[in-house]
Amino acid sequence: MKATLIYGAGDVRVETVPDPKLHEPTDAIVRVLRSCVCGSDLWPYQAKPAQDHGDRIGHEFLGVVEETGSDVTGLKAGDVVVAPFVWADNTCDFCQEGLQTSCRHGGGWGSPGVDGGQGEAVRVPQAAGTLVKLPVGEDSALLPSLLTLSDVFPTGHHCAVTAGVNPRTTVTVIGDGAVGLSAVLAARRLGAERIILMGRHADRTDLGRDFGATDVVSERGDEGVERVRELTGGDGTHVVLECVGLKPAIETAFGIVRNGGTVSRVGVPQYPDVPAGFGVFFRNITLTGGVAPARAYIEELLPDVLDGSVEPGRVFDRTVALDDVASGYQAMADRTALKVLIQP
Amino acid sequence: MKATLIYGAGDVRVETVPDPKLHEPTDAIVRVLRSCVCGSDLWPYQAKPAQDHGDRIGHEFLGVVEETGSDVTGLKAGDVVVAPFVWADNTCDFCQEGLQTSCRHGGGWGSPGVDGGQGEAVRVPQAAGTLVKLPVGEDSALLPSLLTLSDVFPTGHHCAVTAGVNPRTTVTVIGDGAVGLSAVLAARRLGAERIILMGRHADRTDLGRDFGATDVVSERGDEGVERVRELTGGDGTHVVLECVGLKPAIETAFGIVRNGGTVSRVGVPQYPDVPAGFGVFFRNITLTGGVAPARAYIEELLPDVLDGSVEPGRVFDRTVALDDVASGYQAMADRTALKVLIQP
Repeated sequence: MKATLIYGAGDVRVETVPDPKLHEPTDAIVRVLRSCVCGSDLWPYQAKPAQDHGDRIGHEFLGVVEETGSDVTGLKAGDVVVAPFVWADNTCDFCQEGLQTSCRHGGGWGSPGVDGGQGEAVRVPQAAGTLVKLPVGEDSALLPSLLTLSDVFPTGHHCAVTAGVNPRTTVTVIGDGAVGLSAVLAARRLGAERIILMGRHADRTDLGRDFGATDVVSERGDEGVERVRELTGGDGTHVVLECVGLKPAIETAFGIVRNGGTVSRVGVPQYPDVPAGFGVFFRNITLTGGVAPARAYIEELLPDVLDGSVEPGRVFDRTVALDDVASGYQAMADRTALKVLIQP
Repeated sequence: MKATLIYGAGDVRVETVPDPKLHEPTDAIVRVLRSCVCGSDLWPYQAKPAQDHGDRIGHEFLGVVEETGSDVTGLKAGDVVVAPFVWADNTCDFCQEGLQTSCRHGGGWGSPGVDGGQGEAVRVPQAAGTLVKLPVGEDSALLPSLLTLSDVFPTGHHCAVTAGVNPRTTVTVIGDGAVGLSAVLAARRLGAERIILMGRHADRTDLGRDFGATDVVSERGDEGVERVRELTGGDGTHVVLECVGLKPAIETAFGIVRNGGTVSRVGVPQYPDVPAGFGVFFRNITLTGGVAPARAYIEELLPDVLDGSVEPGRVFDRTVALDDVASGYQAMADRTALKVLIQP
């Protein structure tokens, strides 16, 4: 079969690799219907040192079960399923607490010996715990939105949930990438009525308005902080959803959060620490968020995707064939595409 | 009247100052029955540059109302009252949210033009909002425990509440000072059944055991982290209450908190930032806490103090007369006293 490998920064290739086979009785084989490129894939795409062998990449996919190991319950060949971006047994204590990203028997796609999602098929460890069956056919028009259940929509949702977003909280979302827009959608879905989106790409912030943003702030840094404070009577917002991961973004978050409020972050941090001195302490600011246990949220979010009340798949603004995945990476790196869907 | 002034590190004096008078119709004058020295008073006591004038100091006191301004409702001369360590109108939006430390019309004791608590009397701004009437007489044996409602007990409680302590959470408390011991007491009161206290002063950790600590860890740093992890099957505790404020303590907190757990801090931070890189992110650690809005908690905690089901006043292990307050500071700085009560 064909799969995507990354050899280093700017060097993504599609190559023929061995077809996946069941290794463990808890495995399943899934033929991929749709996968996509994540903003976090861009970190290695921009910085990975060159190496002479490729590493599997991709952690978001949706497909059809082809084969199941003898211990896999609840799934059978032909089922359409979505995989969260971390596989997990969904039974250990962490999973029971909704923290499947810390599963005692889980792991990440593309880690050594584990397939990546950007390929024609994937061996899925802990398949019964990992995969969620979708009540749609292989040709459903909902596949793009359902694919977002793998990562980007639950990630935005996790950001909003850990921040405690509800109808009484005012919200700022930092970042107009796919995660930021998903956070807008999630915050609106949780009832937030005032959602300020910080971003400077009009096509993206327009989608953000469709998703529920009530205000758009294009300024950054101190000017951005000032602008949000102007919009909120000087106080800032109860919640700031930081969906970038860069130091200036998290610093902005602390600048615009209201006293007693919460900064939640789901942008993979490209910084070692956050401001937490006397000012943050005196203002009683909470920092929360982290890598999203997507698996914990899929059942909750699925009905709203199925009935069309949310359309998170609108973050996909380009579709490429698997063979053209490199162009998808480049388009996202160049910011000519928001999020790229891959159709093997 | 006499009041305590600080002239610089190691230089605390009791001097005669003008008797307090009503300035605003919202003021009250309170004759102090008991005050005390806070761990946070030790920061200026150890580091304040020498100056030629003294600054008022002290932010914990309990006393008798002597006079009230024309706008003060609910209080009359003769009432025994406790003052939280920040004064507040208790009506603004922040106060209504339980964040009196951010009151729009509040402030701190000992700030310019405002009396400190370590004196014979205090002018109390926003008296109706600030003061809480206590149903006891001037000679009540409960005065020490009631005085802790001013700061140290609500501070420990705030740490536990913001961390979400409940009967299902395992807890580590870092620090065996008066705040740490109060955090133990508060965590136990909120139902925590496993409370690990990190401290190395046997007399203090013995009191911690009386307050509810189930385990004591005297090791610090990496050894302390390892010991707590050993005690918790390798996982750490759901909650870590950081009651010191120094960098090594907050680093230890991140080292021993369980994945998905919460670090709450009430030690005034003597550090500018906290670790928040990929590891903390991947583990979904929340950082919360801050300066405690003591006023928000007094009504809730008061009944348990009155009926003796908690005895937070046991943190006082020395009593000095106001004239001897300097010896109280020195004893706390030398760690020969845990917390010093002042009886004017």
